[in-house]
Amino acid sequence: MNATRRECLRFAGMGGATMAVSAAPASAADSDLLALFAKRQSIRSYKPDPVPDEHLTRILDAARRAPTSGNQQPWKFLVIRDKVKIERMRNRCLERAEASWKDLAAAERDSRRERMKTGMAGYFSAPVYIVVLTDSQSTYPTYNQHDGPLAAGYLCLAARALGYGTVYITDAIPEAVTREVLGIPERYQRVCITPLGVPESWPDPKPKKKLEELVAYESL
Amino acid sequence: MNATRRECLRFAGMGGATMAVSAAPASAADSDLLALFAKRQSIRSYKPDPVPDEHLTRILDAARRAPTSGNQQPWKFLVIRDKVKIERMRNRCLERAEASWKDLAAAERDSRRERMKTGMAGYFSAPVYIVVLTDSQSTYPTYNQHDGPLAAGYLCLAARALGYGTVYITDAIPEAVTREVLGIPERYQRVCITPLGVPESWPDPKPKKKLEELVAYESL
Repeated sequence: MNATRRECLRFAGMGGATMAVSAAPASAADSDLLALFAKRQSIRSYKPDPVPDEHLTRILDAARRAPTSGNQQPWKFLVIRDKVKIERMRNRCLERAEASWKDLAAAERDSRRERMKTGMAGYFSAPVYIVVLTDSQSTYPTYNQHDGPLAAGYLCLAARALGYGTVYITDAIPEAVTREVLGIPERYQRVCITPLGVPESWPDPKPKKKLEELVAYESL
Repeated sequence: MNATRRECLRFAGMGGATMAVSAAPASAADSDLLALFAKRQSIRSYKPDPVPDEHLTRILDAARRAPTSGNQQPWKFLVIRDKVKIERMRNRCLERAEASWKDLAAAERDSRRERMKTGMAGYFSAPVYIVVLTDSQSTYPTYNQHDGPLAAGYLCLAARALGYGTVYITDAIPEAVTREVLGIPERYQRVCITPLGVPESWPDPKPKKKLEELVAYESL
């Protein structure tokens, strides 16, 4: 048996129950949580209002409760509030994009520059940024590809529960920019970066596929 | 600009706000929900009680609200309740493990067989299984590696909100077994499979790292 196999390792640890079990919802509040899932949206413009430490801690404390292979908890949550670093990330995103457009016609470059500036002004308007990382030296690093997004997803949902917006960003703020500006060691893989703050506004809900399109019973 | 870049595509879509924004929690219930994150645990033994369709639908409806690149929603949730298929998956897991032990000493094989049988009896005691898949023909397939675990994490949390247990399984029920028994086409990548049901019991909480070990401020 492969020593890193998710789950297999834990057969010996079963049992040891302590809590009563019911088939019904644990509480009305737990049931209300289901409404929260639909309320989380990607937020691309923020108010400058600070996020109190107590709220930030509660959000991170929720994020680390995500499922994790063999309880390895391979995460690092890098919290950035330094305005200088935030501004530097924004500038580097713009510079890199500009460099990639050098072969385009001037009008096209101008158009992209304006769109990009507006977008980046929104992305970088939050008071806090959280870089979600996994540690390549974790116990079962091949499972970090699951554990990373799982924690980031919990983080976004927990933030929403406290009234904050987030957006799960990968390439729009390139990994190379965060590594360079924030000095992230090679050892850590970046899962995503998200702003955290009070939304400038809650956008209209995105159109979604029907549930029936996404669910299959017994066979595909 | 790379056409599949997450986020960049959406700069043009900003604005259009409709809902009021507050810095405080949306409601006391939302705030209470943070307690739920810590209550979700991996469950490895289930009661036979069925999961009503209404609950299953609510759980799947929550799962599909996960963050998704460019709103692509690349998911398929394959729901299995057929006892014949469930039993066949269990048997195939045991057969494959047995085959991989052929070079071991007899005593070691016997010991592993017993542990594996107990473990598999637990994993396959639930009334429902959900295979979380992503579609390689989605709009931005390179981002499925994020979208897949994100939806599976939402699913586990939503199930917990309604009093059900899950466990995010990858290799303990090999992808090859689910493909073979359930006839999953190559087009779909398996993220994980989870049982869904009322836990035989809620286990003692797992020991966790301190939050301070996982969080870094401004630099690593």
